[in-house]
Amino acid sequence: MTNVDAYAAHASDKDLEPLEIERREITEDDVKIEIEYCGVCHSDIHQVRDDWGNSMYPVVPGHEIVGRVTEVGNNVSNFNEGDLVGVGCMVDSCQDCASCKQDLEQYCENGAVMTYNGPDEHLGGHTYGGYSEQVVVDKEFVLDMPENIDTNAAAPLLCAGITTWSPLSHWEVDEGDKVGVIGLGGLGHMGVKFADALGAEVVMITRSPEKADDAKRLGADEVLISTDDDQMAAHQGSFDFLLNTIPVGHDLDPYIQLLGLDATMVLVGAIEPLEEMHGGGLIMGRKRVAGSVIGGIKETQEMLNFCGEHDITCDVEMIDIQNINEAYERVVNSDVKYRFVIDMDSLKN
Amino acid sequence: MTNVDAYAAHASDKDLEPLEIERREITEDDVKIEIEYCGVCHSDIHQVRDDWGNSMYPVVPGHEIVGRVTEVGNNVSNFNEGDLVGVGCMVDSCQDCASCKQDLEQYCENGAVMTYNGPDEHLGGHTYGGYSEQVVVDKEFVLDMPENIDTNAAAPLLCAGITTWSPLSHWEVDEGDKVGVIGLGGLGHMGVKFADALGAEVVMITRSPEKADDAKRLGADEVLISTDDDQMAAHQGSFDFLLNTIPVGHDLDPYIQLLGLDATMVLVGAIEPLEEMHGGGLIMGRKRVAGSVIGGIKETQEMLNFCGEHDITCDVEMIDIQNINEAYERVVNSDVKYRFVIDMDSLKN
Repeated sequence: MTNVDAYAAHASDKDLEPLEIERREITEDDVKIEIEYCGVCHSDIHQVRDDWGNSMYPVVPGHEIVGRVTEVGNNVSNFNEGDLVGVGCMVDSCQDCASCKQDLEQYCENGAVMTYNGPDEHLGGHTYGGYSEQVVVDKEFVLDMPENIDTNAAAPLLCAGITTWSPLSHWEVDEGDKVGVIGLGGLGHMGVKFADALGAEVVMITRSPEKADDAKRLGADEVLISTDDDQMAAHQGSFDFLLNTIPVGHDLDPYIQLLGLDATMVLVGAIEPLEEMHGGGLIMGRKRVAGSVIGGIKETQEMLNFCGEHDITCDVEMIDIQNINEAYERVVNSDVKYRFVIDMDSLKN
Repeated sequence: MTNVDAYAAHASDKDLEPLEIERREITEDDVKIEIEYCGVCHSDIHQVRDDWGNSMYPVVPGHEIVGRVTEVGNNVSNFNEGDLVGVGCMVDSCQDCASCKQDLEQYCENGAVMTYNGPDEHLGGHTYGGYSEQVVVDKEFVLDMPENIDTNAAAPLLCAGITTWSPLSHWEVDEGDKVGVIGLGGLGHMGVKFADALGAEVVMITRSPEKADDAKRLGADEVLISTDDDQMAAHQGSFDFLLNTIPVGHDLDPYIQLLGLDATMVLVGAIEPLEEMHGGGLIMGRKRVAGSVIGGIKETQEMLNFCGEHDITCDVEMIDIQNINEAYERVVNSDVKYRFVIDMDSLKN
């Protein structure tokens, strides 16, 4: 065991503050990583505040981790000291169930081990995330980061990136498809970039007219204001695919109306009760509503490679770890374009 | 124009009673059919009672029509006098839009013409359905009925049959798939028969333990009582496909829990608001909820051919047209196994 510096939330005081935590020594299958950058995901805040009722304290959040390899176990052949690597939302899974065997560890039938707040089989207790100077991770859950893109801006690819990439890839969004991205936040801004890079005709669907210019800068061909009934009517039945990133419960019906025959809307944000949905909206047009969570390791690597080839990163605002509590308030108020990334070097201050 | 006998509902008195209606003479593309049997669909009752607010009176219901050809137009080469034929929910569509060109007339972008209560381009006014001695239909919307199955019991194939067949076929339900059919009524009993004939492992999902024996007789391998939490938990995440025939708004979440990874539940009954749905239920397992309405003409013919080959008909209770109002009350009270069929010969009484 090694003691390393981190920032953690305690049950008694949900603000984050410095805490020394234990990391395991590397096993023969492990990679030890010095963390350079860690993105701030809205789910970090949910877990720190126990919004989902399953938090284990102290919570060391962070699952958008980029860093350099400092040591590898004897069985590790694909990573070397000095490599730029990433760690996303998962650090382990059974590797044996039908889901894992399809490279869909995120749907592991035995439950993937989350990067933080998951059961820690090595030290007991629970896993600690990336708001920390170092992490030790099984080689199967370490990603190879492209060296040619901005390292800091790449961190949120590990969650916001893969969460939006995975459905676009799985539902085979392709050149010329009309794709709507609903909601322009951390997830939505990556959805627009990816759909655009895949050659789709991208429509940003938002309640906020003031986001139009930014949406177009990110790659949207058009902006559809969802509160404008005439605009919504003009696009009715015309979309091949909708990526719905709205993070809270809402009325799906106006968006279902936008879907064309046999088209799918995928929910990636709202893991909570949605409002009443009209069955007729799905039935007339054989429409589909689906869900999707993050992505498998193989798929995450494919996304990272795609980002390297197409020079895609996230739009980020850099912060020091000491400003994390203030950053959380701004995330809650949707006051960030579009993701905070912590410079973990600041942990030494 | 020809005057023919029918039974109709009037705006003032929603009970059905005898009425003489006008049918067009055949055009060169038409087939004239003497109606032998007509099934009673729950949607007949909705339209008679104007539950959907779009009824045009007098309403002559009936879209599960089986009869014999008595005359054909000059352009009709595939039907001859004396042929046993069927007419389902549609009698026309634009034949030109993307949906129609994919043989999906039920999703015609310009609106398919329904067999009754649709705009009648020939006589003006609206179309009249199968509670009548005769009907004239465009050759593209006439189905060839297999002669080897019970003619009367085949009538509900034209709506209850195709409504359940179409999603099983479109989502490629196959041998060995674990398929749940939710709700045992007119639609559900056909869903069980079809899924069984396709070689699936069929589970009837119902609130009513007293329906178990009948479900097994129809082809279910197992019966799952949806109000029994232990039984529901035992089947969690195990279904490849769910066919949801519940005709009213309900809570989808317990059924979504039954779906396996990437599995789909298709709604065919509830064309009304459903209850709140939990986004997390779809997201964890990349599950899908979809809708489907009736089926295209080509697909309906495929289903009828399949029924001929596998000797599949509906379980019906025969009535005379004079008993239609009483039959409606029994349908509303789910007191029929599983479909009423009117012997249209009784119209002569």
